[in-house]
Amino acid sequence: AGDAEAGKAKAAICAACHGANGIAVIPGYPNLAGQNSQYIVSALKAYKNGERTSAQAAIMKPQATMLSDADMENLAAYYAQMK
Amino acid sequence: AGDAEAGKAKAAICAACHGANGIAVIPGYPNLAGQNSQYIVSALKAYKNGERTSAQAAIMKPQATMLSDADMENLAAYYAQMK
Repeated sequence: AGDAEAGKAKAAICAACHGANGIAVIPGYPNLAGQNSQYIVSALKAYKNGERTSAQAAIMKPQATMLSDADMENLAAYYAQMK
Repeated sequence: AGDAEAGKAKAAICAACHGANGIAVIPGYPNLAGQNSQYIVSALKAYKNGERTSAQAAIMKPQATMLSDADMENLAAYYAQMK
């Protein structure tokens, strides 16, 4: 499982859209607080692998591409434990 | 905006994986309770339009394909108002 503390350090960029508290600043973006970590990882991988090609994917793919598998696990752990 | 009551009537199928309370029964699936309705609609449309092609999309695409735009708005309203 991921390391939420390491995820927190990595989440500064994510917070710009998904909110510092995991509640998205823009209604068209997903809240991440309390989301299933396994789902967050699979969504990030789908963006990275080009399996998501919607308009939002154009924003998320470059972000996900910069993340290692460990980064994804840590970010997922960080957001999953947010209430 | 969608009609949460109409969404509730439509959500029986969704509940099988996303939970009757919007908390996914399988950790690899997303929780929907309290998610942004606008995001839920865009995700459903992405599945319906084939803009999501991950393994999970194989499950979600047939579901989303059966939904009208109004169904999507109603389901999104239903899950967004869940606490």
